[in-house]
Parts: sequence; C-alpha cells; structure tokens
Amino acid sequence: MKKTIDFQTDPSRYRHWRVEYDDAVANLYMDVDENAGLFDGYQLKLNSYDLGVDIELSDIVQRMRFEHPEVKVVVMRSGKDQVFCAGANIRMLGGAAHSHKVNFCKFTNETRNTYEAALKDSGQNYIAAIRGACAGGGYELALACNHIMLTDDSSSSVALPEVPLLAVLPGTGGLTRVTDKRKVRRDRADIFCSMEEGVKGKRAKEWGLVDEVIPNSEFNETVVERAKELAASSNKVAGQGIKLGPLDRQISDDGSISYSLIDIELDRKFRKATITIKGPENSPPDNSEALTKAGDQSYLLRLARELDDAILHLRLNEMELGLWVIRTQGNPELVLAHEAALLSIKDHWLANEILQLWKRVLKRLDVTSRSIIAIVEHGSCFAGTLAEILWAADRSYMMLDEFEGDERPIAKLKLSEANFGQYPMANDLTRIQTRFLGTPEHVDFLREQIGEDLEAEAADEHGLVTYIYDDIDWEDELRIFMEERASFSPDAMTAMEANLRFSGPETMETRIFGRLTAWQNWIFNRPNAVGGDGALKRYGTGIRADFDMERI
Amino acid sequence: MKKTIDFQTDPSRYRHWRVEYDDAVANLYMDVDENAGLFDGYQLKLNSYDLGVDIELSDIVQRMRFEHPEVKVVVMRSGKDQVFCAGANIRMLGGAAHSHKVNFCKFTNETRNTYEAALKDSGQNYIAAIRGACAGGGYELALACNHIMLTDDSSSSVALPEVPLLAVLPGTGGLTRVTDKRKVRRDRADIFCSMEEGVKGKRAKEWGLVDEVIPNSEFNETVVERAKELAASSNKVAGQGIKLGPLDRQISDDGSISYSLIDIELDRKFRKATITIKGPENSPPDNSEALTKAGDQSYLLRLARELDDAILHLRLNEMELGLWVIRTQGNPELVLAHEAALLSIKDHWLANEILQLWKRVLKRLDVTSRSIIAIVEHGSCFAGTLAEILWAADRSYMMLDEFEGDERPIAKLKLSEANFGQYPMANDLTRIQTRFLGTPEHVDFLREQIGEDLEAEAADEHGLVTYIYDDIDWEDELRIFMEERASFSPDAMTAMEANLRFSGPETMETRIFGRLTAWQNWIFNRPNAVGGDGALKRYGTGIRADFDMERI
Repeated sequence: MKKTIDFQTDPSRYRHWRVEYDDAVANLYMDVDENAGLFDGYQLKLNSYDLGVDIELSDIVQRMRFEHPEVKVVVMRSGKDQVFCAGANIRMLGGAAHSHKVNFCKFTNETRNTYEAALKDSGQNYIAAIRGACAGGGYELALACNHIMLTDDSSSSVALPEVPLLAVLPGTGGLTRVTDKRKVRRDRADIFCSMEEGVKGKRAKEWGLVDEVIPNSEFNETVVERAKELAASSNKVAGQGIKLGPLDRQISDDGSISYSLIDIELDRKFRKATITIKGPENSPPDNSEALTKAGDQSYLLRLARELDDAILHLRLNEMELGLWVIRTQGNPELVLAHEAALLSIKDHWLANEILQLWKRVLKRLDVTSRSIIAIVEHGSCFAGTLAEILWAADRSYMMLDEFEGDERPIAKLKLSEANFGQYPMANDLTRIQTRFLGTPEHVDFLREQIGEDLEAEAADEHGLVTYIYDDIDWEDELRIFMEERASFSPDAMTAMEANLRFSGPETMETRIFGRLTAWQNWIFNRPNAVGGDGALKRYGTGIRADFDMERI
Repeated sequence: MKKTIDFQTDPSRYRHWRVEYDDAVANLYMDVDENAGLFDGYQLKLNSYDLGVDIELSDIVQRMRFEHPEVKVVVMRSGKDQVFCAGANIRMLGGAAHSHKVNFCKFTNETRNTYEAALKDSGQNYIAAIRGACAGGGYELALACNHIMLTDDSSSSVALPEVPLLAVLPGTGGLTRVTDKRKVRRDRADIFCSMEEGVKGKRAKEWGLVDEVIPNSEFNETVVERAKELAASSNKVAGQGIKLGPLDRQISDDGSISYSLIDIELDRKFRKATITIKGPENSPPDNSEALTKAGDQSYLLRLARELDDAILHLRLNEMELGLWVIRTQGNPELVLAHEAALLSIKDHWLANEILQLWKRVLKRLDVTSRSIIAIVEHGSCFAGTLAEILWAADRSYMMLDEFEGDERPIAKLKLSEANFGQYPMANDLTRIQTRFLGTPEHVDFLREQIGEDLEAEAADEHGLVTYIYDDIDWEDELRIFMEERASFSPDAMTAMEANLRFSGPETMETRIFGRLTAWQNWIFNRPNAVGGDGALKRYGTGIRADFDMERI
C-alpha cells in the first residue's frame, strides 16, 4: 500500500457520495463505487468504505460548512437499495499495515467528531436515515449523527458485529458512543456487540440504539418531515457561502512540500519534518463584507486549510518521520490583527467557521502520533492562535538574547484572548488550562499578560516554553535532543504521548482517542485477529479462525 | 511459567518485606531477596520485583488494615543501601507470557490503588521515603503514596526510564499519576519520561515529582518527624486489631476449589468456571464487641477474603477459563441481616474495614478480564451486597416461575441501602448509577424498592437483570449463550468488556485501568519491545534494539 494519499478532493471528483440540496436541508447519499477503492486488492461492496471514501466525506462536511452555510440539516442516506453501509472494508483492513489501519481509523474518528459537533459549532444537524443493513463502521457513521431514524422492515437493522465476526472492536467510536452517548444499558450493550445479526425495529428503539423506528411505507416522508422540522427549529443565520478552491501546493520529488503559507522540509536521516509557517503580509479584512469577499484567501482560513492538509499528508504518507519541528516566521502583530478582526465579528457565520476550523486543526495536532516540537526563533510569530501550537507540542525551545549575525527581531511570544477559551482541546479545557492543571491561579495570571511582549526569560518564567537557550547552546541542545528522540522506539513515543497529552477531565472524545483507540490498536496486533489463522484474515474463506484461548 | 501461584501468605513467610511498628507509625522496608523470585530464570537484583514481591506487599497492606488498625502512617523505605527500588524485574518481564505480564500489572495496580486509598478509607497514610535510585516501577510504588520524600545526595533520584531504556511504558499508573495526581507540566513530564537518569534534588521538587527534598544528613530524622506529625494530625479511632488466619481452602487435582463459603467447579471443555457462593447460616454479630470477637470468622469478612482469593487464583492460574458463572444459594434475609449489622456500626473501625474490603473485592471483579455472568436461581441470595455482583457481571439470567421438581424458594432479588453508595465503582458511581446512566430518575425509583421481594418479572421490569426464562427455555438459553461465548476471541472479549463496563465519568483509577493499561498492553505486543530484536529482550546484552521506525 505505498502510494501517495491525497486528502484534497472536490465534488467534481467524488466517486462515492453525492449531495442534493433542498433549501436548508442537504441530502447526502452514500453510494460507494465498488471499483474505486483507494488501493488494489479489494472491492468496496455493500457500501463498505476505505480511506478514499472517508476523504470524500470529510471534504463534504467541510464544504457544507463553508460553501453551504444555508444548510441546517444534513440527512445521511444510502444510495443503494438493500444496504445502508457495511462498515470499513474487511479485505482492506485484512491487507493493510498496522500503521495504515491505525491512522485510517484516527482520520475516520476525526471526521465523525466533526459532523457530530456541527450542530453545536455551526448549526448543522446530522440525521441518519437508515434503510437496509447498517453494520459495524456503518452504524458508527450513524452513531455520530445526532438523530437516528430506522425503517421497520425485515432487512433493516443496526449492528456492531466486529467482535463475533472479526475478533476486532467497533473501534471507531462505536463502543464509546453506545455506552456514553446513547447510554445503552451495559448488559444490552454486551448482547448487542456480541451478535452478528444486529437489532431491528422496536427493540432498537427500546434499547436506545436509534431514536425513531418508522414503518417502511412512511419512512421517506417522515424523514423529510423530521428534517424540515429540525431545520425550522434552528435559528442559524448565514449569508452566501464562499468557494473553497484547490490549495496552492507543490510536492517535490524528495517529498518536501510548499504551500502558499507553509514550507515543509524533510530530513530522512534524522526522521524529521520541519514545518515553517509564514505570518501574514497584509492587514486583515476589517469587516464581514471584506472577509466574505476575501473568500478562501483570508490569511487565517488559508493557513488553517494548508496546515490541516500538511498534517494529514505527513501522517499517512511519511510515517517514518517521527519528529515534527514547527517554526513560524513573520510579524506577530499582524497575526494578532487578523485574529482580532475575526474575533470582533465572531458571530458572523464565516468568522465563526474559520475559528471553528482552527479549533479542529489544533485538535488534529493534539492527537497526531508524532513527537511535536515548537521552535521559537528570532523573527517568529507565535502569537495568539499560532501560540496554541506551542502547547499542542510536546516541548518547545526558544532563542534567548541576540544570536551572532541574526538580524531578525528578537524572539517573543504574545498571548491573546483566543488562548483563553476559543480553542478547547478534546478534554474541553484550553491548552493553557491543561498545561497548568495543578495551578489554575497561574492561568489567571497569564490572562493578565495578554498583549505583552514575552521574550525568552519571561516566557520561561511564566512556564510557556520548555527550554530557552542562547547562541552558545542553541544548536547543540537541539541537535542532541533530536538525535535522542530519533533513537527511541516510535511505539513507546506514540503510547507515551497519548497518555501525557490529555491530563484533566475526560470527554467522549478523549475516551474515543484514548481508551477505545488504544484497545483497538492492541486488537490490531493480536494473532487472534490479524494472524494467519486470525478472524480478520480468515473472514470470507469459510474456515473458522483458530484462537489462542488464553484470557489476557 | 506454569506453576500454581498462591496469593495467600503471612508474615512468617515473607521473603521480601519487613515491618517494624512504632506506635501509630509502621516502618515498611522493601528488602527483596534476589534469590527468591517466584519463577526460575531471573534474580531480583536491586530491589526489583516480580509478582511474588507484590503478593507480599498486598498481604501487608491488608493486614495493616485488619491486624494493625492503630497504625496511622506507613513509611515505605528500602532495606538496601544504594537503591530504593529498580522497578519490575526486566528479565522476568522479558521472559513472561503476554497474559502473565498483563495480569501481573493489573494486580500491581490494584495493590497501588489500595494503599493510595488507605488514607481516605481507613485513616492510614502512606509516605515514601526515598534514598538511592528509585526507578520505573519503583517510582510508581512511590507515586501511589500520598507524600514523597527524597534525600538530596548524588545517587538518589526518581526516574521513569521505561521509554528510553526498554521501549515500554511506565504502565503501572506511572504516566497517569505524573500528569493527573502530581499534575506535572506536560512538557516536563515528556522530558522526565524520556530520560534514563531521572531527576534529583531541587528539580524533582520544583517539577512536582516529589513533595520534599531533604539534605541527606537530616533525612532519617525528618522522615520520623514527618511521620509523627502526620500521625498526630489523624483523628482515627481504632481498637485492637483482629488476626487474619489462613483461609479454609482445598484445591483438587482437577482444579476445582472449595472454600468454607465458596465452591468453584471447572468445565475445561467449555472454558467455564462456576462459582457458587453460600449465604450465611447464622445470625450476625449484633454489636461491635461481638463483631470483634468473631474476628476473621464473621460471614461477610470471611466471604470477602475467600472471594478475593478465588478471583486472583482464577485470573492468574486458569487463564483459559474465559467465562465465570456466579451463583448464590442461601437465605437472602440473613445476608441482609449481616449487612445491616455492619452498616449500623459502620463508624466502628472493623465494620468499616469489612465494608471497604467489599468495595475493593467488587472493584476487582469489575476489572477482571473474563466474561462474568450471574445466574439467579431458585434458592439464591442476591441481596444487598451480594446483588452488586449482578451489576458487576456482564449479563445476568434469572429463573422465572416454578421449575419442575425444584423445591427451593422462588428466585428473588432484594435491594438494600448498600446498593446506593456503599460500593462505588472506579468511576465513583454506584453500579446501579452506571447501569442507568441515561435515566437517573430510575435510580430514585429503585431506591424506593429497598427491602421488596423482587421476583423475576419485577426484576426484569426494573432493569435489574438481563434475561428471565422459565423452566422450558432456561437450560437451552444458557447453553446456547455459553457455547457462543466460548467460541469468541478472548482478546475481543477483553477489549470489549474493558470499554463497555465503565461508562460515565472518568477518574484516575479508570484512566489507569482503561487508557494507560490498554496502551501498555499494546506495547507489550509490539516487536519493538518484545520481539527478538526488541528493547525488552535485548536489555542487558549490550546490543541496541533494532526498531521498525514507522509511526503508528
């Protein structure tokens, strides 16, 4: 499975989904082209999906927010007659490398979280309208919707058959959403998750697996009615959408990448990607008309989209680059000016969408399984929104005092109001709150530093950076650290970072990325699932899997 | 590593620990006999530990509560000169089966949780007094103490070197307690957990890794002083302790076990253990004097100790028995009478200890990696404390109406006050609250049913059992279920149950058993750690581990 995976797409290229617009309601049809799998070796039968299908869905969810702000309800349906969705494609899973499986599931989780949160964040409510079999990842697709409607006929059911059928978990949020979102009684969850055939009709409603069960003859009209009702109850106000054009991106033969605002250099020897973010060059659009007119070209939107693409590209296509070094260069005052312009009109739909997108991109960084280091050099612009990267990173290094021959403005940080609530992590705390979990009073102190120029000594004293070094030590210290990091087991790093990054309270989101994902990763390593005689390999062969029966 | 592991021990048999009593202060010395490992093939050098060392510690912690209630402070020290504790023995870990490693770590976690909670539960405060190297599991031992004192000399440090040294995690609570209990800043935690040499002196205090750093020359006297201060500040009132005698237990050649109150039958073909609990035969000791006089023979204490031993025995020695069926037989009124007698004097130290022990035993059941089924037959006594087992189980089956030729009293459940707060799960909710997470008002309704005889239909209607079957269906339904369960992948069961059992809020305890443990189990399956060229296997050979550098 070695080919470059491109996360950029647009409606003209979709193979698996289509959208029909009906005023405030968007009808989203999953209609997977079984011959258009991302890789060779499997067919996407029965509306099963691979990463390619999910990349399209992610694109749709994103465009729905920016290009179709008039949409208040999205109805997710199947474009096939007999099946809603059979879940992740089993042959694809059986053949994929562990690293691909895990990163595929992570991206899938992020997309589910995005449309699940769309109601709260953007006033777009997702409904699942299920007719036909809805199994495994198919039901997980539905679980992330906020209202699940099931037709009452002999062939329509919801199911999580992973355990009995494949000896793996419903690991893309399934188990967690059943217990924590749908609050299904635990013994019923146990039954539901260990039956192949799933649950139909009234029982599905009684157990809380769906919200409505509707006679087949009334299904379509009830779905339309429900969508209109929900749309009518929304008080979302939005103008005309903007067009999300293709990103300005070049990938060189050696793998280095340049976007309009980001350059990425690769150091394969030290397994390192250096990501340099450029600050804005012009002043911001200063009202909502100007912002709308700037479309997809306003600085913070352009940067968020490029950074999102860069994260996904590096995650899936450059798996051996275990260390990401993030730098910025630019004018911190201009970064803050762009941010302030958005915050001053944050109730405007487009300003809100840009801020929400930043929230998601920063969260993507939080759950990225790479060691992330922020480097605060002279000439950098870690201010406000961009300063969040410092605390999404595992460590940060900052230049202290002047460096010989370096004419750039002295390194400084700037805090803004955006650092105190605009971008909550998955645990619902800000990155600063999470960082200072033991000393909440320090968060209040930091708030008083908004707008101050914080040079290295102040940044260090306030606990905002990990290390400050002067010209004499800088290069050696960074080199030693990077060499050391490159020598560690990438698995140990992944697991350590997954535990250290999310202290404090838990939410459904942290539980999905922490507990459920970790168990899923474990299962994806166990011979009972992925071994030659395991259930995932033997599925469809007619031969039963051969299990080592020891309980762990 | 196939030999029967016995969790029963007593001070006369200790090889690795000793305790000296000084009024309200107990001085606990870890002094591991390197030649007394539980298995062959390794030496327990540098106060490193294996399961045998931890079985003794667990016994000490338990006896401290029952035999030495006068103790208010326990000071954990090393009996060696140069080292506090080097953590879990690496050769033991390198050689052990995955199933043994995971179950060993779970038991270790339970022991850590027990003494960590001893202050709140029993007024016994654990202090770690560290002189010498305190690394890995050694520091995890200290982290579970509530006050950590470190001597300030050139060789004393705290460290979590698992990641750089062994490519595994500090997985016995280490990562979680660093971020969530000690609230160490995340970038400092990243540094700390990726350095082999650990942190000494002032920096350890500044980063929050220890509570006090004391000059070496004043260390001993300061520890004594601090212990006395903490003991003096306690208002615990306790009488004379009771003696915990050896359990009345017989293990037959075929593996079946009988205790005074529990019988365990094994069905190896269907990989099933049937655990039958007998109700009490006599009325309870009706005041604190009588309770003390009954010593370790009062019904609820005897049963808790036997059940605890049975759980541990089956977990570690019978790993292929993936299904536990729990039955009771006896008089439910007498169960409630024993419970009521304890609750009426719950402020008495011994009554409190018995109730706290039940809390721990039930929690042990919650995190046991087996499918647990409760069977409510005619003649059973699932009442109050024993009814908790129904909701610790994954499912329950209850007999409906009379069965031909069955003269036992008709099956019924009885709720008591104890079901509504006495035995919180790791998530700090009661089992009933967790079960009805989506309908808290139902918990209020159930509270009104305290004392009622709930026969099958009522129990089913109230959601207290999973299935009710009459004489016609009972045997077939149970057989079908058990055969099906026995055919599933034990790994899928383990992971599914770990996710379904703990809905609702998270605590440090659930995070340790959920998130951290799952990642640790994953690591313990990864070639980078446990493969032939992995770090755990190559440790001590002088050859560096050979890592697959792909990030997952």
